[in-house]
Amino acid sequence: MYIQSATRAHQKGPLTFPPEARALITPYLPPSITITTTTTTTQSQTQQKPREYPHVTLTYAHSLDASLALAPGIRTVLSGPESKAMTHFLRAHHDAILVGAGTAVADDPGLNSRLLPDPDLEAAGERQRQRQRQPRPVVLDPKGRWAVHEGSKVVRIAREGKGLGPWVLVADNKGHGTGVVDEGRRRVVEEVGGRYIPLEARAEGERFEWVDVLGLLKREGLESVMIEGGGEVINSLLAPPGNGLVDSVIVTIAPTWLGQGGVVVSPPRTVGEDGQPGQPVRLTGVTWCPLGEDVVLCGRIPR
Amino acid sequence: MYIQSATRAHQKGPLTFPPEARALITPYLPPSITITTTTTTTQSQTQQKPREYPHVTLTYAHSLDASLALAPGIRTVLSGPESKAMTHFLRAHHDAILVGAGTAVADDPGLNSRLLPDPDLEAAGERQRQRQRQPRPVVLDPKGRWAVHEGSKVVRIAREGKGLGPWVLVADNKGHGTGVVDEGRRRVVEEVGGRYIPLEARAEGERFEWVDVLGLLKREGLESVMIEGGGEVINSLLAPPGNGLVDSVIVTIAPTWLGQGGVVVSPPRTVGEDGQPGQPVRLTGVTWCPLGEDVVLCGRIPR
Repeated sequence: MYIQSATRAHQKGPLTFPPEARALITPYLPPSITITTTTTTTQSQTQQKPREYPHVTLTYAHSLDASLALAPGIRTVLSGPESKAMTHFLRAHHDAILVGAGTAVADDPGLNSRLLPDPDLEAAGERQRQRQRQPRPVVLDPKGRWAVHEGSKVVRIAREGKGLGPWVLVADNKGHGTGVVDEGRRRVVEEVGGRYIPLEARAEGERFEWVDVLGLLKREGLESVMIEGGGEVINSLLAPPGNGLVDSVIVTIAPTWLGQGGVVVSPPRTVGEDGQPGQPVRLTGVTWCPLGEDVVLCGRIPR
Repeated sequence: MYIQSATRAHQKGPLTFPPEARALITPYLPPSITITTTTTTTQSQTQQKPREYPHVTLTYAHSLDASLALAPGIRTVLSGPESKAMTHFLRAHHDAILVGAGTAVADDPGLNSRLLPDPDLEAAGERQRQRQRQPRPVVLDPKGRWAVHEGSKVVRIAREGKGLGPWVLVADNKGHGTGVVDEGRRRVVEEVGGRYIPLEARAEGERFEWVDVLGLLKREGLESVMIEGGGEVINSLLAPPGNGLVDSVIVTIAPTWLGQGGVVVSPPRTVGEDGQPGQPVRLTGVTWCPLGEDVVLCGRIPR
């Protein structure tokens, strides 16, 4: 695979995320989980109103010209090691990480958290549990594009016990969808504790509706989802009706221009009931957090 | 004129710029002018190597999806009052402000500085001079598109003594260009101390070459130019050879998406001598400065 690094080193191994940055990001995380230090098996949510959907955090990194990548299918490293540590910190605080099939195909992502244990929690005897807390990888693949195999990174990581097996959502239109899943893929995924899950693809172009995807994940017990990409997934979540389901937006911006022709984050224009252009979406509760050479923007989409 | 405010108030009157933000921005300003407080007439440059071109600061504000405006010709207020104060602070520290004809037509800009006097300089008896220091408005108008008239904002401001008369650079190809300037426009401009200046438009599409524009301004005694827009001007300065002439880049980013179809800042892709795509430009010496709800990015383009 061709990997274009826009002059940034690609860091491997465990990552640490500084406490100052952590403090700025924390208000945008999913509702906190009460950690009961006297037992290693009980986790209980703090009192929350019942929700129909999980907490949704939309997060990605792009250039100054809002490009995620130089072109579709070209993995492009934009942000620095500090931003990468933040991504792994966020992953450790969500029940699931969701990407589209295009990202799974292009990036072969690991979709686990490589964050070093939090020293505070470690001191409280939480090291073992924290090590075990990994998000569930979720791949939206209505058309069966992702040819997952033994060598796929997410499979290798799950086999090594450093992440969970993926859930792959495939189209189940009129009962025919699941038939297209190759048995070899299904075996690979199930062997590492993952699943193929059929879901009706009732949006235009045989895509899933976000209410269907998020409703399913909630019913399966996932209380928080971090959505990482790619471009098509992000843009559909920045426009109505998808943006009504997003709780937090966390965007890393790198001080570079990828130039015209990249994979750009820019939602489709909306038209109001009066036929006039819809008002642009402006984030509320905004925090800007310089992080290395990048900046991280945290905010919420007003309902 | 249709003005689309992306939910930001449009502030009028004098502006103040906080000292903390000023300290972060100052390293990206043109070489300092030595102010001799014992006389009100002498200004001498600190010792600098002679330069063929003025110091060039490229500055603009855009949305998260890198849009300057919802569409060409639609003035779009994106950034908050703090960013606006910064713009006027920057204007007070440059000899000239340059915009393209499209911006002059669409925005009817004032192109002066409405910054309140700096209290430090005021204390040093510099109030009078500081009040008088205004940048020279420069409009690139090779094709004579800007129909400047008595009511144009820049003309009214100059007449009130709150700014200088504009210099309008028009094409002078094979000696014919200046003939197209309407005598009425010329009279209006000259009456407020401005000029029409002919220059050969030898770049593709009857545009000016940046070396020609900046060389002319330097010969006319302008040591620093702040380039504010619009999209075509900015994009041509972010790609070679224009970007080799830019000293500082100061970009304000507002936490909103204008959506697909806006006037986007994204340079054209370059191709190296080997036929391969050129490396993306990445800023060096980067500072991120949160300012109100926006963030300001300062950096330099590596030579």
